[in-house]
Amino acid sequence: MSAYDVLCIGNAIVDIIARCDDAFLVENGIIKGAMNLIDVERSALLYERMGPAIETSGGSAGNTAAGVASLGGTAAFFGKVSNDHLGEIYRHDIRAQGVAFDTRPLDGHPPTARSMIFVTPDGERSMNTYLGACVELGPEDVEEEKARGAKVTYFEGYLWDPPRAKEAIRMTAEIAHAAGRQVAMSLSDPFCADRYRGEFLELMRSGTVNIVFANEHELLSLYQTASFDAALSAFREECRLGVVTLSERGSIAVTREETVSIKPVPVENLVDTTGAGDLYAAGFLFGYTHGRSLADCGRLGSLAASLCIQQIGPRLQVSLKDAAGQAGLL
Amino acid sequence: MSAYDVLCIGNAIVDIIARCDDAFLVENGIIKGAMNLIDVERSALLYERMGPAIETSGGSAGNTAAGVASLGGTAAFFGKVSNDHLGEIYRHDIRAQGVAFDTRPLDGHPPTARSMIFVTPDGERSMNTYLGACVELGPEDVEEEKARGAKVTYFEGYLWDPPRAKEAIRMTAEIAHAAGRQVAMSLSDPFCADRYRGEFLELMRSGTVNIVFANEHELLSLYQTASFDAALSAFREECRLGVVTLSERGSIAVTREETVSIKPVPVENLVDTTGAGDLYAAGFLFGYTHGRSLADCGRLGSLAASLCIQQIGPRLQVSLKDAAGQAGLL
Repeated sequence: MSAYDVLCIGNAIVDIIARCDDAFLVENGIIKGAMNLIDVERSALLYERMGPAIETSGGSAGNTAAGVASLGGTAAFFGKVSNDHLGEIYRHDIRAQGVAFDTRPLDGHPPTARSMIFVTPDGERSMNTYLGACVELGPEDVEEEKARGAKVTYFEGYLWDPPRAKEAIRMTAEIAHAAGRQVAMSLSDPFCADRYRGEFLELMRSGTVNIVFANEHELLSLYQTASFDAALSAFREECRLGVVTLSERGSIAVTREETVSIKPVPVENLVDTTGAGDLYAAGFLFGYTHGRSLADCGRLGSLAASLCIQQIGPRLQVSLKDAAGQAGLL
Repeated sequence: MSAYDVLCIGNAIVDIIARCDDAFLVENGIIKGAMNLIDVERSALLYERMGPAIETSGGSAGNTAAGVASLGGTAAFFGKVSNDHLGEIYRHDIRAQGVAFDTRPLDGHPPTARSMIFVTPDGERSMNTYLGACVELGPEDVEEEKARGAKVTYFEGYLWDPPRAKEAIRMTAEIAHAAGRQVAMSLSDPFCADRYRGEFLELMRSGTVNIVFANEHELLSLYQTASFDAALSAFREECRLGVVTLSERGSIAVTREETVSIKPVPVENLVDTTGAGDLYAAGFLFGYTHGRSLADCGRLGSLAASLCIQQIGPRLQVSLKDAAGQAGLL
């Protein structure tokens, strides 16, 4: 028996979300649609310039864990916060969603990570992340029983940014594989895929990772090509299961044997794309760990993503289980 | 020349908002639709039991100030926060909206006020407020130049809960009247109107307050009657301008000479009523300080309230100025 459907590992981040126009991004040197890493000084400067904001727990893999739980799945999370107010918010929100979260917090320094997210009128989000406490996540934070007990261990590529999180990932993957489990990752961001191309490809080629989630920009970045078909062919060969999200064109799941195209769920009112990919992964992995077909996994992912982008912030304000039930997917 | 259209005075509160079902309110002894005052122990207990939340600046009169600024008006705010993380969020958000906010913060104790707001499936909000730093607002926080320079000074009835804020109000009202300005208040909550009935009526009868905002429950509570007509007759006699909001039935503005009925703005998707009355007051007072007819003031109020209840939280995520322009109200 598995203790958890999905164990997620990621940077534990509180999101600070505000609207801005495109000129603001240009004036402040923020790369649109990307995750921009910033230091504490730039964090203070951008906050000073930021409009009225709302705060919500975030972090890519944390969002996925919350999404799995919102679907009625069992999820656990490894991630580092500090013993400060944002850390309290983070811990409260993920536990209140039903996710097991027991990573030991830091004693206040560096502070809990925050990402200032600017949402432009087109709904696109541009993130500015101060990693704070996340830089301290390391192999000592691996909880063996959870690593052994989760059907799928899922981590975000962003974890290659802090210095020692990758050691925690390699250790967790080893434990998971030894227990006959599977390991999944997300490429996170085109620039992240570019920064760690070699290591990400090695993770795939060595079988450390079995399932990889990417959007098309990340996939093209990983393979340094402008040809989607070429990238997809390589991707199909190099991971056991590759899942590519294509925004309003849906998504596609590939193995060496099959290619499954998944239609998007229509979106009436695009508000904020923050968390779309994370929630897609949540829906997909819930389906996958419940023995559903790849097509059904993709449908669950699309539904979760569509709900996510019609609200502010990456943590769903509605029950994904109810929504999936109404859509006939459960 | 007026330095500000509206000076708002109120409890400076960060809202922590989560969804719950009606049974949760009953089990936890929370009066539905009301503002429940709580102490720090109950605050911790309710947070423990609360689902995943989002954080946003709130506070009744603070929301009104932000709404006036969102319409393109000039607004100032008096309210007490502490030098802590929630205080920083509060200060950032209201200043980023363009509101002048210079009240000296406390040095950390008590902490910045927070309200745990539970939103039931019908969209109704039930608030649980720990006043924290707000109990220290007093006459020493009155900035004379702002009191003198604002066309209207507006305060929330909730300010009768902390011990010395009423002294600040009386002092501000005196300065405002001496400068030929007007003073407005909101009755805030039916229980609040009940707690301070005598003092609120005295404020109206003495002319300390010229304009009063109430919803129908607050009005009935103030006059201890079940008859809306009787309450409205008394209200009309006792304040220079009385404004009563009637939820989905619109609103009504009364003076001794006239009665103006204002239609509601249709709401497609009721999400969260938090801040509806505050935003109505913002729209109304913007119109009022710009010489608009009472009917137009009410239309601006209805529009602001309708936008507010179709989103999470009391601070508008869209530009009220743009929305009012599109609706032909500016």
